[in-house]
Amino acid sequence: MKFYEQINKSAKQNNSLLCIGLDSDLEKIPAYLKSKTNPLFEFNREIIDQTHDLVCAYKIQIAFYSACAAEEDLILTTDYIHKTYPQIPVILDAKRGDIGNTAECYAREAFVRYKADALTVNPYMGGDSLQPFLDYKEKGIIILCRTSNPGARDLQDLQVDGQALYKHVAIKAAQNWNKNQNVLLVIGATYPQELAEIRAIVGDMIFLVPGIGAQGGDVQAAVQNGMDAVGNGLIINSSRAIIYASKGEDYASSARQAAFNARQEINQYRKLSN
Amino acid sequence: MKFYEQINKSAKQNNSLLCIGLDSDLEKIPAYLKSKTNPLFEFNREIIDQTHDLVCAYKIQIAFYSACAAEEDLILTTDYIHKTYPQIPVILDAKRGDIGNTAECYAREAFVRYKADALTVNPYMGGDSLQPFLDYKEKGIIILCRTSNPGARDLQDLQVDGQALYKHVAIKAAQNWNKNQNVLLVIGATYPQELAEIRAIVGDMIFLVPGIGAQGGDVQAAVQNGMDAVGNGLIINSSRAIIYASKGEDYASSARQAAFNARQEINQYRKLSN
Repeated sequence: MKFYEQINKSAKQNNSLLCIGLDSDLEKIPAYLKSKTNPLFEFNREIIDQTHDLVCAYKIQIAFYSACAAEEDLILTTDYIHKTYPQIPVILDAKRGDIGNTAECYAREAFVRYKADALTVNPYMGGDSLQPFLDYKEKGIIILCRTSNPGARDLQDLQVDGQALYKHVAIKAAQNWNKNQNVLLVIGATYPQELAEIRAIVGDMIFLVPGIGAQGGDVQAAVQNGMDAVGNGLIINSSRAIIYASKGEDYASSARQAAFNARQEINQYRKLSN
Repeated sequence: MKFYEQINKSAKQNNSLLCIGLDSDLEKIPAYLKSKTNPLFEFNREIIDQTHDLVCAYKIQIAFYSACAAEEDLILTTDYIHKTYPQIPVILDAKRGDIGNTAECYAREAFVRYKADALTVNPYMGGDSLQPFLDYKEKGIIILCRTSNPGARDLQDLQVDGQALYKHVAIKAAQNWNKNQNVLLVIGATYPQELAEIRAIVGDMIFLVPGIGAQGGDVQAAVQNGMDAVGNGLIINSSRAIIYASKGEDYASSARQAAFNARQEINQYRKLSN
């Protein structure tokens, strides 16, 4: 199944645009898990079991696993989601980008080794650096456009021919890079105005929206500015505010409550008449 | 020792600006190595032993290792270089970039787990995304500026206030991001004119220059346009043209010959009167 189909199906089934970011950090998980063989996987599994009916996707930030040699935990996590809740896609957040033969290796890392359904990529090196990813027609290729951090403005807001660089990325994504209809864009919830502007450029392309929760983005503004004409088109990610809702042994049920509330808040601002 | 000191010392000792890229690919190494426990490491070790007196650095492209779960080979390789040839720094080519808490993880991956002396990073997300890397004062932070691939023009050449985006990156690198004097830039050998323009902007900052060899960059033009006032300031990388100079069991001695020739060609165009 193509990623767009997959994510639209899971969003509909769970009536949810919420994505939980499994930015699982050895230093932040409850103490009782740390002695297990695969502590990050054990941490994730409980959260997944508690939230699989509330999300449209899970996003795994690879840096947290790479920093502590937890590749096995990452593989166990994606395998667990695919086997237990096969309707929920897994996004690997790795922001890769390199020249052709190297990008092919990164694509194999994400899609073959880690079996991700979608991957975030960085457009700075241009179209040919994205092509090896785009060639995976069944996978979602999520291109950084306007990121959620304050420093995003350093390059992304520079004016090129009267409009910001990130709009040029959005235009290229829509016109040149989306031949396989598998492109999505990263647009931070911290910039709701930009969400509206980019929505006007790219029609019904899906956005991955980080920045609510710990980063302080406004859910109402993000949803109302970012959604497509029928109240969809967004994958709204929250990581720390959900997975660390409690630091105790009740972390998974607290994560469920936080995810339930986040889904509800998001849905409240969607056009639910559809 | 700070990276600038380290690389200048190794370049002087070996009279070399050549960096060998260990883009070691399981599918391309000689058949007799494939049955070994750590085939990529074994492949690298022979090349390192044959070339350590000809290079200023080794560069390891992480994607080749990540694609085939060869993290151990990567660690064995950096450990081997550090222990056996401690004067030769190791650059990890990973082109990382993400928001603060994630970038910290990537920095730990590169500098703590893999013990790299320098790391390539992507500037698209701006200064705050680079800061966790820049904070490692002893390490070299090598920022993508003008890359060697044809698609580099898609974003990097867009005109901002009358000059190309990559020049804005060079200016920010020199003026804002180099407080710890540990910043380098990636500039492709395939664009010698750009090398000269950026050299004029950033003074004696060191450039990592990919694109000679398999990518077809002109060594003479790259050296003459890119070097600093005293014939230094460049780390000129060649990967495939050296490590796959022969596909047979003589690959390491062939790599030595190719490295010897590359160093000589580079030196021929430097100002050697210094």
